[in-house]
Amino acid sequence: MANDKEQRAISPTRQDDYPEWFQQVIKAADLAENSAVRGCMVIKPWGYGIWENIQRQLDDRIKETGHENAYFPLFIPVSFLEKEAKHVEGFAKECAVVTHHRLEEKNGRLVPSGELEEPLIVRPTSETIIGESYSRWVESYRDLPLLINQWANVVRWELRPRIFLRTTEFLWQEGHTVHATAEDALEETKKMLEVYREFMENVLAMPVIVGEKSPGERFPGAVSTFSLEAMMQDRKALQAGTSHYLGQNFAKASEIKFSNKEGQIEYAYTTSWGVSSRMIGGVIMCHGDDDGLRLPPRIASKQVVIIPVIPKPELEADVLAYAEKIARQLKACSFYERPISVFVDKRDKRGGEKNWEWIKKGVPLRIEVGPRDLESQSVMICRRDMPHKEKQKLAFERLAEEVPLMLASIQKNYFEQALKYRDENIRRDITTLEEFKRYFTPKNSDKPEIHGGFVLAKWCGDVETEKLLDELKISIRCLPLNQSGTEGKCILTGKTATIDAIFAKSY
Amino acid sequence: MANDKEQRAISPTRQDDYPEWFQQVIKAADLAENSAVRGCMVIKPWGYGIWENIQRQLDDRIKETGHENAYFPLFIPVSFLEKEAKHVEGFAKECAVVTHHRLEEKNGRLVPSGELEEPLIVRPTSETIIGESYSRWVESYRDLPLLINQWANVVRWELRPRIFLRTTEFLWQEGHTVHATAEDALEETKKMLEVYREFMENVLAMPVIVGEKSPGERFPGAVSTFSLEAMMQDRKALQAGTSHYLGQNFAKASEIKFSNKEGQIEYAYTTSWGVSSRMIGGVIMCHGDDDGLRLPPRIASKQVVIIPVIPKPELEADVLAYAEKIARQLKACSFYERPISVFVDKRDKRGGEKNWEWIKKGVPLRIEVGPRDLESQSVMICRRDMPHKEKQKLAFERLAEEVPLMLASIQKNYFEQALKYRDENIRRDITTLEEFKRYFTPKNSDKPEIHGGFVLAKWCGDVETEKLLDELKISIRCLPLNQSGTEGKCILTGKTATIDAIFAKSY
Repeated sequence: MANDKEQRAISPTRQDDYPEWFQQVIKAADLAENSAVRGCMVIKPWGYGIWENIQRQLDDRIKETGHENAYFPLFIPVSFLEKEAKHVEGFAKECAVVTHHRLEEKNGRLVPSGELEEPLIVRPTSETIIGESYSRWVESYRDLPLLINQWANVVRWELRPRIFLRTTEFLWQEGHTVHATAEDALEETKKMLEVYREFMENVLAMPVIVGEKSPGERFPGAVSTFSLEAMMQDRKALQAGTSHYLGQNFAKASEIKFSNKEGQIEYAYTTSWGVSSRMIGGVIMCHGDDDGLRLPPRIASKQVVIIPVIPKPELEADVLAYAEKIARQLKACSFYERPISVFVDKRDKRGGEKNWEWIKKGVPLRIEVGPRDLESQSVMICRRDMPHKEKQKLAFERLAEEVPLMLASIQKNYFEQALKYRDENIRRDITTLEEFKRYFTPKNSDKPEIHGGFVLAKWCGDVETEKLLDELKISIRCLPLNQSGTEGKCILTGKTATIDAIFAKSY
Repeated sequence: MANDKEQRAISPTRQDDYPEWFQQVIKAADLAENSAVRGCMVIKPWGYGIWENIQRQLDDRIKETGHENAYFPLFIPVSFLEKEAKHVEGFAKECAVVTHHRLEEKNGRLVPSGELEEPLIVRPTSETIIGESYSRWVESYRDLPLLINQWANVVRWELRPRIFLRTTEFLWQEGHTVHATAEDALEETKKMLEVYREFMENVLAMPVIVGEKSPGERFPGAVSTFSLEAMMQDRKALQAGTSHYLGQNFAKASEIKFSNKEGQIEYAYTTSWGVSSRMIGGVIMCHGDDDGLRLPPRIASKQVVIIPVIPKPELEADVLAYAEKIARQLKACSFYERPISVFVDKRDKRGGEKNWEWIKKGVPLRIEVGPRDLESQSVMICRRDMPHKEKQKLAFERLAEEVPLMLASIQKNYFEQALKYRDENIRRDITTLEEFKRYFTPKNSDKPEIHGGFVLAKWCGDVETEKLLDELKISIRCLPLNQSGTEGKCILTGKTATIDAIFAKSY
């Protein structure tokens, strides 16, 4: 039986080759795949179901905080990008450029024809094209705040694409808001950061450190950028979302002006904030184990899978009827105000094979149902966060009470496991640059992924120091909002410093 | 008071200038606008809210019929388009072509750089790129049927764009399925046609004629195309959705093969079906009146708007508290299994101004609340399908019972009005080509939009006759599924004919 397991689990393990483990989990769980278009992925139904759950639950929160959804064009005229100097630097280097609007046959091949007067780029982010609309929509302080969000696909040409983490096309939401004062805009920036934190920790079960980015890591054109940083199981950081305070930079670039209460014309203050399908990569790397994906119940599109076990054909009808009865019972229960989603796997496959498929896909609860269970009006239930052989017997009439509690317990367990792992791998006591470097150096050159983890240390704030970090392939992930305020020595320069910073390798 | 109304209503009226009335309704209801990118629209929150409601309710139906959502790349290599001869003819003429992946500064301007080896087009529809995935996913009859849907943006370069009806970029869903037999694929094609019909008639309140397209109107590459045709108030037809039976054409182009139960390798049979944001255009033109939009309650993002009327500042707190109490009461009610969506309009504007805004936006129910209503614990309620001055008094304790019924009644009313209008404007008795031509000729050359309507007549099936129709700017909209089977004479050629066809001008 041990052999059986080893055959079916993910190969390689996390320990052996983390990046390859990640790819193999995606494959084994049937989440996504590379497409024929370089850098663009196909998100398969099991992966897209996660995105739909993320979208629905985050969208609720975006609306509850007073935002409305809208939709802006996919294309941006090149001249729009040119309006903000830092923005163009940041995005012109890696974008899809549309130059023609027709194909023509020439020598039996289709070639571009109908050249555009002005090339268009496919949006890498929409500040400039949305700004054009806002400049017309905003006239008076009465029009503010303007609170709009968009769910969309965006394109950033990636030279080293990686499914879910860094793809040429990806799915995201981008909020774009306009305010009358700097204070209001900054408050919005932080409010959405908190919405993201609560969502990531409670729904994705992924603990995040929330803080401000150092100047070298700011969004191109922002006054300040805030981010949420999660630790993956290779102890690298994943930036899971960002919220930007743009000051008047984009308002000036796009001419977003309003007349204030005194009747004077002022430039407005804007923000933008976004999270993307990259979060799915975060979920995989935060919770997955050597048997595959482990999905937090709140984002699993199937929370419970029922596998009928039929030893003799003549028992099939009865066992299936019992499986359907269990399904009906569970669908009538709710978990976070939604009916529990249940799937009866009647496919023509062996039970053991099905069981392993669902383990790899990370379904929170698996229920096996055979003739004996029918007879005793009970089920054998198995949690994805427990050893696969550790089945729990449960009477049918206990299901409605126990299953929602089990889902809640798994959700909590994933969060706590991830939090414990992260906290165990943040060093707060490193005081010398030598020790700092050693911490980030892989012990074994065969496994460059395996290194220390995060460091929380003092930083003097000198922008020049970020170059040294570049060489070490480390970056300042963020300056946590929760600052100690104590004085110490900058880990990089030895200068007196008060800023607490999180240093890490990152995706 | 009549003057007051005339000032605020939509100008021109439907009768005076239908196309311009359409644009003015979109503007007055704040649904959408043209963007700086030619042919691309901005869907504003009030318009996007309609799309979200369409999406949610249609998505439920797509899932209930066994389909799952997935996401495929935005870009299609030009060589993929070349695989299906008719398909390339149909789509190569009007597509956005990406030729570069970078912008470079040259003489102070950004110019395209990093030319791609093979140009990419932005998907006009995804048969070919999805086919590439399916050719890898489908191996055996056990993998079939493969039932997948995608919600996405698509791009077709439009020379004469028109908001919601014909835009370069639009939002849609596209289902793509694979089957083992022709019968199964054809059954799927018709099943989804019926899903669309039920959705359009019950949710959009828009009656549709369902039928097969004539060969000249088929989707490029399809064996047969079915469509849903609605009559707008200018009596032109709007094709509101299509469902295509693709036979083995795309399976051959993309090499989608499977081993059947006998172990032989066969090409599979595929279908595709889609509806788009064009349906919003249909809703506007089907239900709107000279005072603006009229939204069927099932797709209105605000179903009830409460307008507090405050004659004296000292009464403000009490009136607002009463308005909120009404809102709470209604939000606790449901309409089609969703809480009624209610908005208390506390904006700093005159009551009359607010009232007219919501009329133009097509909100199904408006409730005015003033001190007298508070005193009598009642409300004045006004239905958008009734004259604006016809207010109905309703006791507070009757709200929970009456409001859902009123919404249902408005929904039904819109459908019945549209059905009556359509049936009154279908001629079934035209027997000569002269009469046929006269029917479609505008009586007044100033108003080319105003003509007869639809004609239901016999057609001999000769493809050549479609050229004559082209000259008359008429087309065969569809051959209704519901065929009489009787014999008669082709309205175009006079030949003996049994096919019933719907002839109309169209969008």
